[in-house]
Amino acid sequence: LPDAVPAFVWVDHEIAPGAALTLDASAAHHVVRVCRARVGDTVAVTDGRGGVARGRLARLTPAVVVEIQTVDRSERTATGVLLCGAPEGQRFDWLVEKLAELGVGRVRPVHCARGAWAPAAVRPERWRRLAVAAIEQSRSRFLLEIESPADLEDAVGAEGAPKLGLVADPEGAPAGGLVRQTGGSTVAVVGPAAGLTPEEKAGLRERGFLPVSFSGSRLRTETAAVAWAAWWAAPV
Amino acid sequence: LPDAVPAFVWVDHEIAPGAALTLDASAAHHVVRVCRARVGDTVAVTDGRGGVARGRLARLTPAVVVEIQTVDRSERTATGVLLCGAPEGQRFDWLVEKLAELGVGRVRPVHCARGAWAPAAVRPERWRRLAVAAIEQSRSRFLLEIESPADLEDAVGAEGAPKLGLVADPEGAPAGGLVRQTGGSTVAVVGPAAGLTPEEKAGLRERGFLPVSFSGSRLRTETAAVAWAAWWAAPV
Repeated sequence: LPDAVPAFVWVDHEIAPGAALTLDASAAHHVVRVCRARVGDTVAVTDGRGGVARGRLARLTPAVVVEIQTVDRSERTATGVLLCGAPEGQRFDWLVEKLAELGVGRVRPVHCARGAWAPAAVRPERWRRLAVAAIEQSRSRFLLEIESPADLEDAVGAEGAPKLGLVADPEGAPAGGLVRQTGGSTVAVVGPAAGLTPEEKAGLRERGFLPVSFSGSRLRTETAAVAWAAWWAAPV
Repeated sequence: LPDAVPAFVWVDHEIAPGAALTLDASAAHHVVRVCRARVGDTVAVTDGRGGVARGRLARLTPAVVVEIQTVDRSERTATGVLLCGAPEGQRFDWLVEKLAELGVGRVRPVHCARGAWAPAAVRPERWRRLAVAAIEQSRSRFLLEIESPADLEDAVGAEGAPKLGLVADPEGAPAGGLVRQTGGSTVAVVGPAAGLTPEEKAGLRERGFLPVSFSGSRLRTETAAVAWAAWWAAPV
């Protein structure tokens, strides 16, 4: 959709031509208050699963309703997945925003030997809001999925055999010399603030995960994660 | 220096063998309270200008003093410089931290046609503290320099002719297909939240700045900046 359509919102619905969608409070606020759209104006809507629709703002009261006119749908050709150890403090919040902007498909917090996620640090509703804001900001058609925390080994097992598996490691192969997968899934593991143990690293190597270095210096958890995401997202 | 030396601090001094350095309050706190070093322990010290010294904690009172034993010095082979338009809110604070961790050499806030830096958003002391924390975190030997804000045109002019000049642009050449300069200076321009004007883009092209895209989607100012930094920092 052209940038000339100012309102671009995510909806938690199937979108199909002819449907009348009632916007939730957040999307309604964005369309009516931020973008100042009026009845009759064109609005762009994404379902975050590859569909982007052009619609018409049909009414504002008692609820904001968009009538879908046309839908354009595409599939992901490449999916980036991050299994992320616990960073310090609230640093995961901005990481979620950055992963979402860079088009990463899924992120899962993983408990590691040297760092478990504190229950209070797991804030799925806040993370979801950040991901939705990012999809609207970047006018993207895919919403970052945020999964429940799991133990590292279980999370890695649940991914099956990715096309490319990486683990961030200052001693690893240089990222600048590595060919990125432009199709299929890339799964990256980033350790917690205190790092992965030698046993965890060995277990990942046995499963085919390649140690990769994203910088000449030691990076914090969330910095290694965003460096991986930028590497993964770079257009070729 | 081996990771086995727990205390690694930045000092705003020349470091030379035989010198006795008095640590400032922040470095003293890090060495004594965070790393729990005692008199006689080995301490690593960087001047942030390429020098890293091994020293001995000589005394704790009335001030914390490190006697420098050996100094290892190296020069940068490649320098990354960012001229950065104003992002939204306080987003530059974490960008400073990420640029510092990724080893970027200098950053300069630039006023653009669609976005000037509000005086209250320019916080050089806070940014310096974040950069110092990052150099200590990543055990690096180069401190991120943070320059005073300038108008875009003046800032670009002051850089002379970089070996590689880039401007972040969603319509630009794909970053994944671009060869990074492993020597000399790379200067990147990232526009403010509302973007660069066509005139600003044309002026940069005339000066040889290449438009480069760092993602398939639209990125916020600080996301484009960190994506550039990650691209620039990736070891080859």
